Amino acid sequence: MASSDPLARLVQQLAKLPGIGERTALRLAFHIMRAPEAYAQALSAAVLEVKSKLVECEQCCQLTESSPCPLCADARRDGRTVLVVAGQQDLMAIERTGSYRGQYHVLHGLLSPLDGIGPDELKIQPLLARLGKSDSEIEEVILATSPNVEGDATALYLAKLIRPLGPRVTRIASGVPIGGELEYADGVTLGRAIEGRREL
Amino acid sequence: MASSDPLARLVQQLAKLPGIGERTALRLAFHIMRAPEAYAQALSAAVLEVKSKLVECEQCCQLTESSPCPLCADARRDGRTVLVVAGQQDLMAIERTGSYRGQYHVLHGLLSPLDGIGPDELKIQPLLARLGKSDSEIEEVILATSPNVEGDATALYLAKLIRPLGPRVTRIASGVPIGGELEYADGVTLGRAIEGRREL
Repeated sequence: MASSDPLARLVQQLAKLPGIGERTALRLAFHIMRAPEAYAQALSAAVLEVKSKLVECEQCCQLTESSPCPLCADARRDGRTVLVVAGQQDLMAIERTGSYRGQYHVLHGLLSPLDGIGPDELKIQPLLARLGKSDSEIEEVILATSPNVEGDATALYLAKLIRPLGPRVTRIASGVPIGGELEYADGVTLGRAIEGRREL
Repeated sequence: MASSDPLARLVQQLAKLPGIGERTALRLAFHIMRAPEAYAQALSAAVLEVKSKLVECEQCCQLTESSPCPLCADARRDGRTVLVVAGQQDLMAIERTGSYRGQYHVLHGLLSPLDGIGPDELKIQPLLARLGKSDSEIEEVILATSPNVEGDATALYLAKLIRPLGPRVTRIASGVPIGGELEYADGVTLGRAIEGRREL
């Protein structure tokens, strides 16, 4: 076999990334091989750094350089609402909209019994502890999990646990996307949109 | 902005890889962030290693752990034919078929004047030097560049330079792929297939 060992090892590591198959891994590996030395060093360092320098925020559980994270430490943010997301990508997507100014909580996953992900695999206890604190000023918990099987199940599960602690529990709306065409929306989305209709 | 710096840096480095956009880079970065520490270390090391441990084979110009590479050093391979490929991926694809037992030469690219890739950017001189050696036993040079504009141009250019040196110059066949359906083959492929017809 012509493949030299360092190449095979890099391909093997790259192929473990989500959505990267053997062929793509090989293409990426060849790119790295041909790229300037400085690029390989920067990439290599960035990979290590993301593990070594990031810690979990003691309050919202997102991975951050400092704990509490800049979002939790920001006194201008509204501490009366907590928006619960499955992952940090979701948090970033919501932050980009600029339409939410409260606090966050990152679950690091969704309930998925078939994949072996139960409540203990998620950051649910830290959320409950946060809500149960005597000095908690949280009045509303917004469950912003995706409107799919896992997201719905997780939201229902959390709602049942949170309600006894006092805060109002809400769920983000789902329906026809803005700019979307009714005729192209799938049946479930349309059904949800009608169910969730509001007085004008 | 919620993005912590190490994450942004990793995304930036990953997004430089071919076919990896910002969104994919973010997804990969989050995967690395959540993966065990050992994975980040293995990936990081593999990236560095592929640059530091690989050298260019003095004969065929492929990147390898030792020069001459295992293929060039293998005395059981037929030294009378040299198969010229654009990249190492092509070499590996041909090796996998097991249908070629001669030597190789890797150009590290194809002529593409619009992208600023001229003859000097490719490993053409080492190939000519190899063919011009007084003790060269090379009788045939097989040009195995892809049958597209760059591949054809490179093959024609090389043929013109190699013929005066003595060896027979051939080009791999192009036509309807084995297992392919005539009715689905594009016109150019069909045209080439007819042009390249052979006596049975």
